[in-house]
Amino acid sequence: MENFIFCNPTKLIFGKGTIASIDAQLPADSVVMMTYGGGSIKKNGVYEQVRKALGSRRVVEFGGIEPNPRYETLMKAVASAKAEGVDFLLAVGGGSVIDGTKFIACAMGYEGSDPWDFVRDNSKLKSVTPLPLATVLTLPATGSEMNNGAVITRGSSDEKLAFHHRDVYPRFSVLDPEVCYSLPDKQVANGVADTFAHVLEQYLTYPCHAMVQDRFAEGILKTLVEIGPGVVKDHTDYDTVSNYMFSATMGLNGIIAMGVPQDWATHMIGHELTALCGLDHGVTLAIVFPALMSVMRADKHDKLLQYACRVWGIDSGSPEARIDEAISLTRRFFEALGIKTHLSDYGIGDDIIRSIVDRMSERGWKLGERGNVTPDKVKLILEAAK
Amino acid sequence: MENFIFCNPTKLIFGKGTIASIDAQLPADSVVMMTYGGGSIKKNGVYEQVRKALGSRRVVEFGGIEPNPRYETLMKAVASAKAEGVDFLLAVGGGSVIDGTKFIACAMGYEGSDPWDFVRDNSKLKSVTPLPLATVLTLPATGSEMNNGAVITRGSSDEKLAFHHRDVYPRFSVLDPEVCYSLPDKQVANGVADTFAHVLEQYLTYPCHAMVQDRFAEGILKTLVEIGPGVVKDHTDYDTVSNYMFSATMGLNGIIAMGVPQDWATHMIGHELTALCGLDHGVTLAIVFPALMSVMRADKHDKLLQYACRVWGIDSGSPEARIDEAISLTRRFFEALGIKTHLSDYGIGDDIIRSIVDRMSERGWKLGERGNVTPDKVKLILEAAK
Repeated sequence: MENFIFCNPTKLIFGKGTIASIDAQLPADSVVMMTYGGGSIKKNGVYEQVRKALGSRRVVEFGGIEPNPRYETLMKAVASAKAEGVDFLLAVGGGSVIDGTKFIACAMGYEGSDPWDFVRDNSKLKSVTPLPLATVLTLPATGSEMNNGAVITRGSSDEKLAFHHRDVYPRFSVLDPEVCYSLPDKQVANGVADTFAHVLEQYLTYPCHAMVQDRFAEGILKTLVEIGPGVVKDHTDYDTVSNYMFSATMGLNGIIAMGVPQDWATHMIGHELTALCGLDHGVTLAIVFPALMSVMRADKHDKLLQYACRVWGIDSGSPEARIDEAISLTRRFFEALGIKTHLSDYGIGDDIIRSIVDRMSERGWKLGERGNVTPDKVKLILEAAK
Repeated sequence: MENFIFCNPTKLIFGKGTIASIDAQLPADSVVMMTYGGGSIKKNGVYEQVRKALGSRRVVEFGGIEPNPRYETLMKAVASAKAEGVDFLLAVGGGSVIDGTKFIACAMGYEGSDPWDFVRDNSKLKSVTPLPLATVLTLPATGSEMNNGAVITRGSSDEKLAFHHRDVYPRFSVLDPEVCYSLPDKQVANGVADTFAHVLEQYLTYPCHAMVQDRFAEGILKTLVEIGPGVVKDHTDYDTVSNYMFSATMGLNGIIAMGVPQDWATHMIGHELTALCGLDHGVTLAIVFPALMSVMRADKHDKLLQYACRVWGIDSGSPEARIDEAISLTRRFFEALGIKTHLSDYGIGDDIIRSIVDRMSERGWKLGERGNVTPDKVKLILEAAK
């Protein structure tokens, strides 16, 4: 096991009827900016529940944060929050709203001229104290409700980049599984795919004698294999959506990451596909992961075998045949969610592959748990995903 | 899944050579009380590492905290800490030293006349602000390094009682697996048994559709089944002791408890055996758990079957035969650690059973996940453990 430091102070408030508990968690004199997305919360009752829980506190609303939240939009929220004297941010939405709100929190405390600088160079966040934030999760997927990372897109330069800050963990996150009942199938499919990919990024690397962490990761993967395709079709059963929601949070809150190597190449390649072609984040992961498994199979050999056996129950055949089957079942899993897994399904061809490889080369990125997913390898991966 | 709130702010610092990191975690002007037990830390090099990391800070030492830490001893530490103006407590030891230090932390902030009152009645802790504390773990077992509970014994009344406080989580805990190399075999055996029992208390109840939590719990149990007997005999392999140490912390830090019912009857009965007969805590659990499984098998039927299948790989035979085998394998597991599992092995007979049942009756305790482990059931369990 590798040395590690783990600290996750987010208070998780999980279950039916828990949105009302916001009132007890927030100082009575807070000036709250409530951030949200396209307005689905106004149709499914979440908006009313949150406003009721906020009581007589002064609330500044900022709606319209888009999927792949944009710097340009978020800077408007920063200006509004400053003008209104906001001292607490409450994100009501999925990962995009929460990530965007983390950006607002850091930008509020940033003294440099342009907050985009800290997205490009996280070291500029060191001396920043973010505004406190909390979340009401409405779409289980990114794990942002219980971690300190965020991904922001800048439209003017087609960039999609991540940042982290030690103090940007939500103070609390309210997870009421009932909010999932009204989600569109496609969003649930993307959420399951995203969660599955998060776990793989922290699991499918090389063995390092982290026995419990491996079992934890496999436990989430097996749960998603069991409930994933079903919960896309019907997400109105409380027990099932609870397990989907809980899986998404556990998939990226640091617990399964303790003491193990991490990959994240699929995410980095996927971000480029979203930035350049506008594909949903979950879709990009379903396209890239099976291809990456094939190209990196020698490096990931031992863990691929373990994955084949423990997640998919494949325990006979030659090692190479088992790995082939595990990769094939992974692809079929994503497709059973209703997500097509080839670039050609989305009309993406060689020109985009070339652009992505060029960008990786310019940035000098070496991705993956061994830092050996070079632009050449990225090309092979994207070719394999055609 | 049941509604839950989870929040665990302890910073876990895990790995080789991490004791030196204490220096960076503690304010330079802290007045530190360093608490420890019988002095083994002076033989294995831990004492020197800690003192070196504390640098020039003023340090008040309080050694001699015994296994099953005693109120009478701890009150001396409270008097010393008050006299010396201590503002931070650093527990260097196993669960007993850490639990004792949590008592000191709460007693320092308690305004009533006798701190034993808050052990008897946890509601008296509500308005108490404990002194901050941190730990250097030297014996993986109780999970106290990453939770907010403690168990204290009062000699004058043969009582062993637990308390919890929302703010008594260690600020940080340093876990260097190398400290396990010099542990006596018996302590490792007790630590493995204690961890196994902690997980069972949170897992072996009734199904509540907590799919991920079940997999997490089974992951720790399977890891202990794999490494437990071996690590008792030889605890000088870094990878193996890392997994033992990590299992113990994950076994009782709230992660596997999210949204599930909990039992704890075995612990409550075990505490009585320790209080009245002086048995090691881990030993009492190994005696009580197989007996409790037999007596409560109807209530725990579905989870016993799941446990048989997923932890022990028993997937054929009648349900009752599978449960019998799982109980038998549980007993054999404890015995493979070198722990005898019958009361008669320790010369404990009917008089003690009667005393325990009488005490439970006097207190009106109804234990277990359904509150139906009444004194009558406790009698049956202890009879089955003869």
